[in-house]
Formats: sequence, C-alpha cells, structure tokens
Amino acid sequence: MTIRGAGKIARAGATALGDMARNHSGGTLEDFRGELSAASKVILDSRPTAVSLWNGVHATVKGVDEAKTLDDAVQTVISNSEDFVRRSLGAVETIARIGAKRISDGDTIMTHCNSSAALGVIKEAHRQGKDIKVFATESRPWRQGILTVNDLAKAGVDVTMIIDSAVRTVMRRTDKVFVGADTITSHGALINKVGTSQLALAANEARVQFYVCSETYKFSPMTLFGDMVTIEERDISEVVRPGEIPDSVKVFNPVFDSTPAKYIDAIITELGMISPGSVYDIMVRQFGDSLFKE
Amino acid sequence: MTIRGAGKIARAGATALGDMARNHSGGTLEDFRGELSAASKVILDSRPTAVSLWNGVHATVKGVDEAKTLDDAVQTVISNSEDFVRRSLGAVETIARIGAKRISDGDTIMTHCNSSAALGVIKEAHRQGKDIKVFATESRPWRQGILTVNDLAKAGVDVTMIIDSAVRTVMRRTDKVFVGADTITSHGALINKVGTSQLALAANEARVQFYVCSETYKFSPMTLFGDMVTIEERDISEVVRPGEIPDSVKVFNPVFDSTPAKYIDAIITELGMISPGSVYDIMVRQFGDSLFKE
Amino acid sequence: MTIRGAGKIARAGATALGDMARNHSGGTLEDFRGELSAASKVILDSRPTAVSLWNGVHATVKGVDEAKTLDDAVQTVISNSEDFVRRSLGAVETIARIGAKRISDGDTIMTHCNSSAALGVIKEAHRQGKDIKVFATESRPWRQGILTVNDLAKAGVDVTMIIDSAVRTVMRRTDKVFVGADTITSHGALINKVGTSQLALAANEARVQFYVCSETYKFSPMTLFGDMVTIEERDISEVVRPGEIPDSVKVFNPVFDSTPAKYIDAIITELGMISPGSVYDIMVRQFGDSLFKE
Amino acid sequence: MTIRGAGKIARAGATALGDMARNHSGGTLEDFRGELSAASKVILDSRPTAVSLWNGVHATVKGVDEAKTLDDAVQTVISNSEDFVRRSLGAVETIARIGAKRISDGDTIMTHCNSSAALGVIKEAHRQGKDIKVFATESRPWRQGILTVNDLAKAGVDVTMIIDSAVRTVMRRTDKVFVGADTITSHGALINKVGTSQLALAANEARVQFYVCSETYKFSPMTLFGDMVTIEERDISEVVRPGEIPDSVKVFNPVFDSTPAKYIDAIITELGMISPGSVYDIMVRQFGDSLFKE
Amino acid sequence: MTIRGAGKIARAGATALGDMARNHSGGTLEDFRGELSAASKVILDSRPTAVSLWNGVHATVKGVDEAKTLDDAVQTVISNSEDFVRRSLGAVETIARIGAKRISDGDTIMTHCNSSAALGVIKEAHRQGKDIKVFATESRPWRQGILTVNDLAKAGVDVTMIIDSAVRTVMRRTDKVFVGADTITSHGALINKVGTSQLALAANEARVQFYVCSETYKFSPMTLFGDMVTIEERDISEVVRPGEIPDSVKVFNPVFDSTPAKYIDAIITELGMISPGSVYDIMVRQFGDSLFKE
Amino acid sequence: MTIRGAGKIARAGATALGDMARNHSGGTLEDFRGELSAASKVILDSRPTAVSLWNGVHATVKGVDEAKTLDDAVQTVISNSEDFVRRSLGAVETIARIGAKRISDGDTIMTHCNSSAALGVIKEAHRQGKDIKVFATESRPWRQGILTVNDLAKAGVDVTMIIDSAVRTVMRRTDKVFVGADTITSHGALINKVGTSQLALAANEARVQFYVCSETYKFSPMTLFGDMVTIEERDISEVVRPGEIPDSVKVFNPVFDSTPAKYIDAIITELGMISPGSVYDIMVRQFGDSLFKE
Repeated sequence: MTIRGAGKIARAGATALGDMARNHSGGTLEDFRGELSAASKVILDSRPTAVSLWNGVHATVKGVDEAKTLDDAVQTVISNSEDFVRRSLGAVETIARIGAKRISDGDTIMTHCNSSAALGVIKEAHRQGKDIKVFATESRPWRQGILTVNDLAKAGVDVTMIIDSAVRTVMRRTDKVFVGADTITSHGALINKVGTSQLALAANEARVQFYVCSETYKFSPMTLFGDMVTIEERDISEVVRPGEIPDSVKVFNPVFDSTPAKYIDAIITELGMISPGSVYDIMVRQFGDSLFKE
Repeated sequence: MTIRGAGKIARAGATALGDMARNHSGGTLEDFRGELSAASKVILDSRPTAVSLWNGVHATVKGVDEAKTLDDAVQTVISNSEDFVRRSLGAVETIARIGAKRISDGDTIMTHCNSSAALGVIKEAHRQGKDIKVFATESRPWRQGILTVNDLAKAGVDVTMIIDSAVRTVMRRTDKVFVGADTITSHGALINKVGTSQLALAANEARVQFYVCSETYKFSPMTLFGDMVTIEERDISEVVRPGEIPDSVKVFNPVFDSTPAKYIDAIITELGMISPGSVYDIMVRQFGDSLFKE
Repeated sequence: MTIRGAGKIARAGATALGDMARNHSGGTLEDFRGELSAASKVILDSRPTAVSLWNGVHATVKGVDEAKTLDDAVQTVISNSEDFVRRSLGAVETIARIGAKRISDGDTIMTHCNSSAALGVIKEAHRQGKDIKVFATESRPWRQGILTVNDLAKAGVDVTMIIDSAVRTVMRRTDKVFVGADTITSHGALINKVGTSQLALAANEARVQFYVCSETYKFSPMTLFGDMVTIEERDISEVVRPGEIPDSVKVFNPVFDSTPAKYIDAIITELGMISPGSVYDIMVRQFGDSLFKE
Repeated sequence: MTIRGAGKIARAGATALGDMARNHSGGTLEDFRGELSAASKVILDSRPTAVSLWNGVHATVKGVDEAKTLDDAVQTVISNSEDFVRRSLGAVETIARIGAKRISDGDTIMTHCNSSAALGVIKEAHRQGKDIKVFATESRPWRQGILTVNDLAKAGVDVTMIIDSAVRTVMRRTDKVFVGADTITSHGALINKVGTSQLALAANEARVQFYVCSETYKFSPMTLFGDMVTIEERDISEVVRPGEIPDSVKVFNPVFDSTPAKYIDAIITELGMISPGSVYDIMVRQFGDSLFKE
Repeated sequence: MTIRGAGKIARAGATALGDMARNHSGGTLEDFRGELSAASKVILDSRPTAVSLWNGVHATVKGVDEAKTLDDAVQTVISNSEDFVRRSLGAVETIARIGAKRISDGDTIMTHCNSSAALGVIKEAHRQGKDIKVFATESRPWRQGILTVNDLAKAGVDVTMIIDSAVRTVMRRTDKVFVGADTITSHGALINKVGTSQLALAANEARVQFYVCSETYKFSPMTLFGDMVTIEERDISEVVRPGEIPDSVKVFNPVFDSTPAKYIDAIITELGMISPGSVYDIMVRQFGDSLFKE
Repeated sequence: MTIRGAGKIARAGATALGDMARNHSGGTLEDFRGELSAASKVILDSRPTAVSLWNGVHATVKGVDEAKTLDDAVQTVISNSEDFVRRSLGAVETIARIGAKRISDGDTIMTHCNSSAALGVIKEAHRQGKDIKVFATESRPWRQGILTVNDLAKAGVDVTMIIDSAVRTVMRRTDKVFVGADTITSHGALINKVGTSQLALAANEARVQFYVCSETYKFSPMTLFGDMVTIEERDISEVVRPGEIPDSVKVFNPVFDSTPAKYIDAIITELGMISPGSVYDIMVRQFGDSLFKE
C-alpha cells in the first residue's frame, strides 16, 4: 500500500475504474458490468475500512445499471470517474480557501501525518503572503512527516520537524492545529492517523484551536447506524526490524485513532466550516431522508 | 553518549572517579586533588544538566579537602565511590519493592523509555507472581523501547511494544503508568524523556494512575532557587538520515519534557511513596537548613 | 404508579385509549369525543411531565376531530393506538440493533435504572454472541436494578449489581455506559432517572463512552420554547420507613436529574446515532417548520 | 459611537435608510438607487464588522433593484425598514419569553455589558413575579453596566453592580448567566463584548448555566466560509486619561472576545433554544442551499 | 460488626484492652502479656484493614514489654487506654473547633455516611449560632444516613436526607462538603465509605469546597512503603434480600472507595488544616526519621 | 488608605513603631509599653485582616516585655523595626533573583495589581538583559495598574496595559503570570487583589504557568486553625460616582479573592520556590512545634 490519505485513495479508486472503462474492449454490456463489479470489489477490498473509497467507487459506478448500451455504460463510468476526481480536487481547493482564512499573519501551525486537505490550507495561507511557521510530526511508523516537510519546504513554507513524542512540548508555542480526516462519524468523532487524538488532547489542554479538514465524502453514513469504524492493525515489520526484539514481544500497530468531538473546534468542509454537532445534518442533506426510513 | 538514565549516569560518574583513584600512582596530595578536580569537571561537563551526576560526583569527592595524606584522599574517593553506587543500587531495589505493591494481579502497566527504577518495579511485581501485561513505547528517536522490551521479555514479562503515537489509544486499556525521572524540581515537576508528559496527560484524561520512580538524588536543589532545568536539544541526525529532508527544514529534537505536578499521583522514592507536594520537605531534610540561609 | 420507563408509559397511554375505543358502546360521536378527551386528560395528568406520554396520546387521538362518524372515530383511535405501539416497539428494536454494534466482544457495560431501550441494546449484543459483562446499579429508592438484573440474568447475560455509591469505583473497569431517557431537550440535555448524571460525570472522568438510548418521541418540543422539564419530587415514604427518622428531618426525593450535553458521546435513536447537537435538527424535521413561526 | 448592542445597531441602520427614503424628494429612480447605495455604504462602514448591521441593511434594500418606479422603490425601503425593526423587536420579545422560562423563582442571574435581549429575559422573569437577584458587571472601559443597572432598577429588579474582576468571586452565588451576542459563528462560537468569555469560563468552572440571547440575524454566514470575525481595537483614550501613563506604555483595547461553543449551554433565539451545534442548521434554513454551491 | 467509623473503632479497641487489664486477676506477668497479645490479635483481626485500630492497639500496649511487675503492666495498659481515648476524643473536639470556622452563616453543607469528626464540625458550627442547612446521604447499604440525620436533628440542625443518587443534583445548592476518613495515605489520597469519591468528584465539578476531617492516627505509615489499602468487600446479603435476584447475579459490595488528593481542598486534623501534600510531613514528624532507614 | 501591598503595609507598620520609639521622650518604661501597645493596636486596626502587618508589628515589639530599662525598650523597638524592614526588603530582592530565573528570553509576562515582589521579578529579568514583554491589568477600582505601568516603563520594560475584562483574550499570548500575595493559607490557597483568581483560572485553561511571589511573613498561621481570611468589602464610592446609579442598586466591592492551590504552579519565597503543598512545612519550621500543642 503506497497511496496514503483518504482523499487520494478515493480518487485513485475512481480513476482506476475510469481507466478500466477507457481501456475496455470487446464483450457485452453484461460482461462489462461483471468486470466493473469485480474490479469494484477488488478496489474496495484493498481498503475495506475507507469510507471515502466506498463513496468514490459508488459515485463512479452510479448509472451503469440503467445504461442501455455498452457504450453508454463505458461513457458513464469514464464521465463519473472524471467528475468525482474533479469534485474531489475542487473540494480540497475550497477547503484550502476556507481554512486559510482561519490562519493569521504570524501564526504557528501544527500538522500530523500527510493530509492533502490540511497541507492545502497551509500552503494557501503561505501563498497569500501570511508569515507562518509549521511544526510537522514525523508520524511513525511510516514517517509521512518526511513527505510533509518536503512538500511544505518546496512551497517555501518555514517548517520544523518534530518527533511524535514532542507534540506536547511544542504545543504551547502553537496557535492552531490543522489535520486531515480518514472518516468522520455521525456523532462528530474523527478517525484519522494514529496520534491525531494526542494532538487534539494536547491542543485542548493548551487552548490551541484544533481544525479538521475533511471533504464531505469522508462522512460515514454507516456510523449513523452504529457501525464502528474498523481500525486496521498493521504488521510488526513496519515498527521493528527482524531480530531487533525477541519473538515473545508483541507489537500493536494500529493505523488510526479516534478523536472525540469535544476536542474539535471546527470541521472545514467544501460546504463550509461546521461544528462536529452538524455532521449529521450534512449527512441527511446529502443522503436524503431515505436514510431514516426503517 | 551511550549511557542512558539519570541513575546509571550518576553511578558511572562515581565509578569513574573511584577508578581514577584506584589507578592513581605517584604525585603529591595536591596533584591528586588537582587531577580529581579536573576529572570531576570533565565528567560534569559530559552531562552539564544532570542533577544526579552532580550529586554522584559531589558525594564521591566529599572529604578529600579534609584528607591529611594522599593515601587518605585516595581511600576516601574509593570508599565514597563504592558507597554511592551501593546506595544508588539499593535505592533502585527499595523503589522496586515499594512500587511493586502498587501493582495488582491482572494489571496492565505502561512505561516509556528505559528507566531502571520503573523496570525494577515491573520486574519485581512479575517476580512476585503477579499476572501483568506491559505496554512499552518505542521512544523515538533513540528507540530505548527496544532495550525495554528486550529486558522485560528476558525477565519473562508479557510485553507489547507500541509507537509513541499510540499512547492515547492504549491508555484506556492501561491500569497504571510507571516512568522514571531525570530530575524532580522543588515544586514537584518531573523532567524526563520527551514524551513522558504526553503519557501523563493521557493518563489523567483516562483516570489512570501515574507513578514516577525516582531516587532522591534526582531531586534538584538548584530548582529551589529558581533554576530552570535546561532541556538539551540534540542533533538532527538522530531523527533523519542525510538527504531525507531539504536543508531548509529544521528539526527540533529536545531530549526531555516537563510534566506538571498535577498529573503525578505519587513519586516513589527510596524514602517512601510521596505526593509531589512533599519534594521540598525531603530536600530540606537532606540538604539541611543551610539551604534557607540567604 | 407501577409502570416505569418513558417508553412503557407512552405505550400504556396509547393502549389505554385504544382499549377505551375498543370497549366503547353506544352514545354519539360527540359523546365519544368527550369521553376520549376526558380519558386523555386523566392519562396525561397521571404523569404531567412525561413528554413521551404527551406524544403517545396526541398520536392516538390524531384525526378524531376530522372523523365523520362515530365508527370512523373509534376505528381511528384503535388504529392509531396500534400504530403508535408498533412504531414504539420497532424503535426500541432498531435502537437495539444500532446500539449493539457499539459494543465490542469483551466489553464491560454499565447501566442505570431499568430502561427497555438500553437493555435492548445489551441483550442484542449478547444475543449476537458477544462476550460481555454488565454492571447494573441498584437505583434507589425504587430499586429498579432488581428488575434489570432479573431481566438480564434471564437473558443469560453476566451481570453484577452494585449500590449507587459504587458507580465511580467500578467505572474504571467499564468500557461503555448505556442508559435510557425520559426526555431529551432541544439543546441536547438528558432528563433521566436520578443518578444518571453521576454515571455521566464519572464516565467523563474516566474516558468511558456514554450512550443514551432514546426513541425520538422522547425529544421534547416544549423545551425548544424554553420550558424547563419539571422534575417530580416524590414522597418521603419511598426513602424511609415510618419512625426511622425524626419528624424535623426533611427528605428530598427527586425522580430525575439532568445530564448536560457535554457528557453525552452519542444519542442512539431509531433514526440513527447522533450528537446531542443534532437533536434540534431532528425535532425540526419531525414537527415541521411551523414550529418556527412566531 | 453612541449606539451599543448589535440589535440596536441593526435597527438604527434599517431606520436610517427608512428615514432617508421617507425624506426623499425629487430626482430619478436611478438617483434614489445611487443615494441609497451610498447611504448603505456609509452605514455599513460605521461598523464594518457588525453582521447584524449587514443583515439589517440588506433586508432594508431588498427589492429596490426590481422596483419599477421611484415611488415603488421608496415605499419598498420604507416598508422593509419598518418590517425589519418590527421583526427585530419581535425577536427580542420572543427571546424574552423563552429565556424567562429558564429562570426559576429564587434564582440569582449574572449579566455582562448591556444587551437588550439578555435584559429582556431578566425583566420578563421579574414581570412574571419571580423573585430574582442580578449581578451586573461594570463592563469597562465604556461602563455599560451603569446603563444596565439603571435599566433593571427602573424595572424594579434587585440588582448589584460588581467590577469586572469580581466575576469569579460572585459566580459561586450565581445560578445562571445570560449574555447577549454581537455575532454567532457557523461553528457555534460567540463573539461578544470583551469579558464575556471570562464569565463563560468562570460559569463552566462552577457548573453555572451559561445562556446566550441572540436574534438569528446575528448568525454570520461569512464565518461558514472561514471568515474570522474582526475584533475592533479601540482608542487608548477610552482606558486612560492624558498624562496618566507614559508615552512608552501601550494600551490594548479590544471591543469583543470569543467564547468557544463548549462553554455555552444554549443559545436562545426567536426560533427557539438551541445547542451551539445547531447554528449551522439554522443558517442553512435561512440562507438556503445556495450557500453550499461552490 | 456494629461499630462504625475509624475513630470509634480505634477507641473501642483501646477501651477493650483497658477493660481486659482492669478485669484481670491472677496469673503471672508473662500470662498477662500473653493474654494481652492474644487479645490484641483478636481485636486487630476484627478489622485487619483499619489503620486507626492498629494505632489504637499499639498505643495501648506500649511499655508493657518494659514493665517490671504484673501490676505495672496492668496499670500501664489501663493508663494508655484512657490516654488514647482521651486524646482521640480531644482530637475530634479540636477538629470540630477548627472545621467550624470554615463554615459561614447561611452555608449549606453536605456530608456522607456517619463520621464523628465531620458531624462534630457541623454541630459545633450550629452551636455557635450559625444558620446552616445540611444534606445527608442515605449511604446504602447500611444506611448510616439514618444515624446521621437522627444525630443532627437531635442537635437541632436543619437537615435533609437524600438518596445517594441525588448527590450531584443537590451539589449545586451546596457550599461545602465535610466528610470523615477511614485512612489517609502518604500521597494524600482518602480512603473512606464508598460513595465519598462521588461527592468529591461532584464537588470539584461545581467548585464546592471539599474538606476531610481526620485525626492524624488515621494517617497510614504503611502506605509510605507502597501498601495498598485493602478495601473490604462485604456480603451480598447487605444489598439484597434472599430470592430478590437470581443466583447467577453477582453483587459487588465494597465498603470504601479512594478519593484522589486533587479533589481534596484541605484535611482538617487536630494539628491544623493542611493540604493533602502535607500528609507525608506530619507522618515523618510523628513516626520519626527511623521510618526512612532501610 | 493610600498604602497598597501587604509587604509595604508590613514595613510601614514596623517603621511607624520604630519612628514612635525614635521620637519618644519622657515617661517611664511602663508608659512607653502602654504607648507602644496602643500604637500597635491602632496600626493593626487600620488593616485588621493583614497577616503581614500582624507579623511586622509582632516582630517589632518582640523583646520589649523583657527590657529592663526604658532605653533598652526603645532601642529594641528601633532595632527590631530596622531589622524587619531590612529583612523584608531583602526577601523581595531574593524573590526577584529566584523569580527572574523562571523568565526566559522572549517571554511575555502578565501581572495584576501592583505587587513589589512580582514587579521585582520582572524588573530583575529585564535588568539581566532578557527581552520580555509585559501585560499589566488596569485593576479596577483603584486602578493600581497605572502605578504598575509607570513603574515598569520607568525601568525600561516593554509594557502594555489592558482592562480587566481582556485577561482571557491576551492569556493565549502570555507565557507566564507573576502575581503577589496578600496572604497564603496553610492549605496553599492565595488571598490577593480581587481578579487574581481570574488570571489563575485563565492561565490554567491555556497551560500558562502561574507563579505567586510571596515573602513567608504572608503565610498565615491563623489559617492553620481554620480561620477564614476576612475579605474586606469597601465603599461603593470607589466604584461609582454620586448619582451615577439609583439608590436601590447595590455595589459589591470586595478587595481580595481566593485562588485555590490547584491553579498555582509555584510560590516563590525568600526561602526558595515551593509547591503550595509545602506551605504548611515552612509554617511549622518558622513557628515551631508549639503550634501543634493543643
């Protein structure tokens, strides 16, 4: 798994289905539907817990069942795929514009892991000429902090890297935290890269504002019906090298953690900046009242 | 710097001066005093911020000024050195006995970095037949967690390693936290390996007891007079490999952080288990009323 | 008053009116309307503060004013009554399904008093084969905990009873709290059996998730317009036996208490799991925009 | 600036435009539109940060562009102006009725500055015969507390004035806090007279309920798109007299401060009492889905 | 076990040994010592976890080993027994005088269970003519609240009884909480009747002062060496009647709970009012430096 | 009353008695004792609640009862008076040296009212060349902030004045708070100028360190025995001008407030920097064990 970030994963899923359609040749409409269904399943199974991917795949295959001809179906998928990617990237841009207004000249920002949406906000504020400093965590075990500092340095942003254990130390010198999202639940909790909830807790302790940057396709309708977001546990080899620790030692390596709504000041979406208490409202508007019929 | 832990450093300093005395030959009493003074200075300068080292060195050279002959002086240093090491190791054992009583059968313990005193407590509880589990953090950048899990696994303790970002995730399943100390201030704050204050904060949030294991020679009398404990910042090379990040990116790499008294349930010393509010009392008993004369 | 629980009370009210209609004989349409109105009043007065009863009665008499014939009116009441009871029980089942997903294998649950909705969640999780333990409070003065442990034990759930003063002691060993609701206000506060707010406070202190199980007919539209939920004070005889205390001693015996939204992680309704900040939104959807016309 | 309070400012703006229309004579429709536009600009520039004024002005000029004749346009402005003022005053009355229900006989209330909406609530509760006491802060530097105590005393309310530094001292004897609002953001934060957030913090510490009284035209749609509410800094002369302090001393004199949603129990609007998490929902209902189109 | 309260238990233990000595006849000095030792053991075993009893017994037998004659030994025990009881009662009186100063005219006090020391404070304040009100909890399962309200009513105090679940409800109307102590640990934690920590938590939430009334013989030197205070679990029959619950239902019935130092404003002892951080200091003064020799 | 600050008051009291002795002529030893006693009473009555004044007066008259001659007595008072003033000023200097070490280059400091000890710390840090900024509150009603900013500006410190309501607004930009003390209680609470506890609360919310600068003669031994520190209420005329408010309006104008120990990071005394939990320990050392005899 080399692709990181719920937004990128969703776009990759939509693009892969679009490419499949584009490269499709021969066969019947039914064959295409079958292939598409199989491909969707493979894609969804690559990250079974990613609600953004689920949204991306479903947005891409929408209308194929109603297509009358093979060509119709193929064009529908290609067009849906392009639409989803464009809207997704547009959402990241909108979030960048909204979030950048929350950053004042002279602010120090902290971020965690490597979120396109959160980095978009920071780079937009820098592009507007605001004088800002950024603390970026290393984000073990994959060390996405390396990607983050490379990205921000390339954009000319003044960035300092810290290890994950130094979050509380530098929080006192931080004005605002911006992080991304893997999933947002119906009751306003954030599921994101492990360690995010530690930033939130330390920000809350120091009266530092904590902003989540999240496209609304990361809002999980399944959570409305109680589904727990499964937090993947990954292999020991990501944390230790062979022989470094005895066989009897276990390694617990969860990918995400959960940040409660009470530590989140605002969620910045492409539909505006909201309270975690308003997630349900947006879900209902997007998925319709049918959600509430038993 | 290969020696870790304030206790080990103090014993190493005392032992080094003892060895110097043991290997001493020739010269006058004055020569010896000069060499001892120079050696003390070198040793103290190797870790100028370690109050335990300061205590170890001063305990070892005590009485040399009053010695009448070279032999007296040499024997004094050898004997002081052995005394300090014995008392220091004895303190660690006493702390292990006291602390182990705080652990109940079935408890899950969390520890950070690699503290002899904290590990002594855990291993003593295990030795007494208590069924315990331990979470040990990786403790980037030096990854002393590797040492810790090797040590505990060798003692037969059920231990699981986690990355530093997973502290809050597993805190809910933890019953008690035991950490060591580099320095304790006169107002009850703990200076210890960076990340310690994040464990304390997360423990406080989840009503998990937070215990500090500290020999009293880690209590800093200088802090009584307002001295800030200098927190060493170490080299970027401990965090990133050459070429991994652009030159414009800074790395902030502090060794320690500060945990406020309000997050500490008790400090376990060789003189008993105390409140952070009682540190001053022990300091005064140990250093005498002369501390308070202007 | 032998019926407990806001849901049961609402269903009892609807059923009583349905029975009245079923057993009705003779008289004119106007007579029936008068009797129905009188019966409704008697029922509402038996628990003047119960919003669920208000909702149940109003749902049952809806359409009677428009009925053209006596038979129409009678059939309307019978049918409304059955509908309300069916929907109410359906809501409890839906809540059980949603809530059970929030319970993981190995969890320890705490509950208070004797809520059909909360017990439904627990029994559903047990029915699904999850290995769970339950702490149930005694719930003085009526000791509904006795009902609760009988109910759970009959369903085969591993249950331990505690006195109300032991809530904080066992909260550290608890993973999640599930309680019912008498009333939910427009700003997300919970009115429920006295002692509920102490569970919420202790859960918040120990980072234990606090879930409220509530059918939406317990959402009180009156609170939108500022009405305080009247908390009934009941007789001294429920707490002490005659002669046990001097006449000069007062006994304050409130039935309910109020839990602020900030201690509630989620409200589980038949329309999904929501934040307390979303109660208003559901109220508006259910009662319509007319609520907001002055 | 002699007019205080966001509601009064909005009504003053609407009234000024109405008066302009009423006194208008001569010229063409285009002339009138130009004058109206210029007047609007002057009015908005007098308090560029007041969202209530923006709402008042826009409500007053609505429909002028569609007017066919000069007379139509003039009448539209006059009628809009009267409508806005009537609805605004009606909102204050509705809030008074709703808020007064939250006050119990025997309550002690605290208020800050001089808010029509908050005072309306207090006076309505008094008018209903409830026995209440009020603490009113001085509200330096303008000392609007003088206005407040005069207003309440005139209404016969038992009122005690305190200096702003005594807020925490008397909070323990207070049952509920009622304050007004300058602006409410999309994520539920309150912008109001400087010092408001100190009342909220002290109320939260002492478990005292904190109510915000706000007409919905103080909800700022600009904040949905990330706009920071500009907090005006006013002149040094409001705080010190000439010569009282050396020239080298600065004076920081902000008009407002920001109270986070977590310290607000409820917002009382003319549309009912809501959670801060429901502000977004009302905004969307009032401004329409067009808000969310990119 | 009919005697309640750590002070009463200690005095009962001392008195029993005194009575044994008083009624002693015949036998040798050695016989007496043997009987005394056996009696002490029986007494200590009746409440093995009560540090006050341990202190009372040891104070009573002090000097018997040094006695030269049987008569000396007998008189020593009689005299020690009377001394301990007198000093213990004197301590309760001193605490009453000190604590009563903390109560102001018009205060509402809350207390839990039935503590001589806490009731002494309340009755002394009343005796001084202060107009006070008291909330006393029922204190299930033994319902010592019945004793408390009888005692206070007899003294003429205005007292209201509440069930244990109503603690948080009435805490907002409470000014100060006074409770007794079973044991105080070296790090300032309070071990007292189960439910005490819920009062402390609710007091902390509402900024209500929380005072512990404790003679210093309840300070446990064993805790200095890490000993956990064993919290007795008592029989199911104290909570439920036979047949009330199925056999499969467990009952967890702990006698005490533990209140952390951070929720205690002050401990009122016969040596003055102190911070929980000063417990260690008093222990050292009372038990001497020998405590700290390994 | 024109003298402000507990230290200045104590020195003024001691000086006044010294001057009385110096200007004394004629009369017998008994006459002198009588005059001294009367003068002491007058001085103590001028500020009956000031423990520092009580300490200053008692230190000055110490030994007069034992004097053999008039001259002895006169010289004793003169000498005591000079000693007390010298030690008091020395204490302020020592506190300045200790406290200045807690200030780092680049820090922003907040202070309240006009405390010699707190200002001494700030000016010493500035004198050492540290680049600092200071926020000083106006401190209504007496506006001692005017004195503070004049004093700091004269010393060349960069100082900004704020109104008392702006404390929370600027706290986020503040690194450390330094305030003085009127009285410190035996359980570590601070009695100081009204508003101090609001600084402490806001500092705690924002993880800003809160330091109290207090000579140990402000530690009140009376509080050990439960005495409440009487908080003087001063005249309405200090807050409002005649005619500004109706006669029916009350003004509550307390001079001090009480800050609980939990919000105090450290107390800086001339005997070192301590935890609030160590106040009792210093009291006992200073006043001797006789304090604890009943």
